[in-house]
Amino acid sequence: MLVLGIDPGTATTGYGLVRQTERGDQLQVVAYGAITTPSDWPMPTRLQKIYRELTALIRKHHPTDGAVEQLFFSRNVKTALAVGQARGVALLALADGGVTIHEYTPLEVKQSVVGYGRAEKGQVQELVKLLLGLDAVPQPDDAADALAIAICHLHSAHMASLMENQT
Amino acid sequence: MLVLGIDPGTATTGYGLVRQTERGDQLQVVAYGAITTPSDWPMPTRLQKIYRELTALIRKHHPTDGAVEQLFFSRNVKTALAVGQARGVALLALADGGVTIHEYTPLEVKQSVVGYGRAEKGQVQELVKLLLGLDAVPQPDDAADALAIAICHLHSAHMASLMENQT
Repeated sequence: MLVLGIDPGTATTGYGLVRQTERGDQLQVVAYGAITTPSDWPMPTRLQKIYRELTALIRKHHPTDGAVEQLFFSRNVKTALAVGQARGVALLALADGGVTIHEYTPLEVKQSVVGYGRAEKGQVQELVKLLLGLDAVPQPDDAADALAIAICHLHSAHMASLMENQT
Repeated sequence: MLVLGIDPGTATTGYGLVRQTERGDQLQVVAYGAITTPSDWPMPTRLQKIYRELTALIRKHHPTDGAVEQLFFSRNVKTALAVGQARGVALLALADGGVTIHEYTPLEVKQSVVGYGRAEKGQVQELVKLLLGLDAVPQPDDAADALAIAICHLHSAHMASLMENQT
């Protein structure tokens, strides 16, 4: 299973591709980074860049699953509208690429990565580094967040398969 | 000039295509309606339907300009995120279709259609009916709103050309 985690935003959309080893006991990072768009570009052009670069990533790596944070709140309505626009084209890119989409709340992501729903951002990033065997916390922050969402889905899928094998 | 006005929403995305006659003294409605998506569909599938139907409309009618409402507020953050997602794929469809995009605030739309920025929804819809020479107020509401946005852009473009001719 190869998971593409996405942390959408109009200025910066973080992405992280994480694979579970055949034996299912280890996580391997395949790629991570951020798609950035200049703030002086018209919004439609920024959204086109996000859609196109995500589509290129999907065509290159063929992820089986996509994982995106489910947001119900935001700093304010203006931010929510902007994030919503980026999220909309990210979901479209995943759906058009035939990738199965899973959504997790920020609480679920923290719970899954750190084991504690109220964990701080820094703790999540430190655990992402440890779980993926990286030398440093992945940069930028949005890429680390995207990797955390991908890990959350892998944990959740692993749990589901363990449960299935028990019955 | 053929304008595609769009009022984006995940449940209902209204659209309206309005043309200015050659002499520039009359508005003609070409098509209007709404793209609806069932609330029990997964969000990515709903966004795909909105993107695809808008793309089909653009390919069929070849609008030169697109007009979308510029939103800075919303009932709440959850609504803003949802509207943002639909707005994101609508802007993407326009940009991918090579349509020039213009954005207007709700105040500008009311000002332009009714001549009064604080006009009520019913007044705007009545004026849309009159300006387009329709027998009844276009249904659903989102289609009437989309037509109002298209009219707003035609008025604004007409004004701009008058100003240019004067200098």
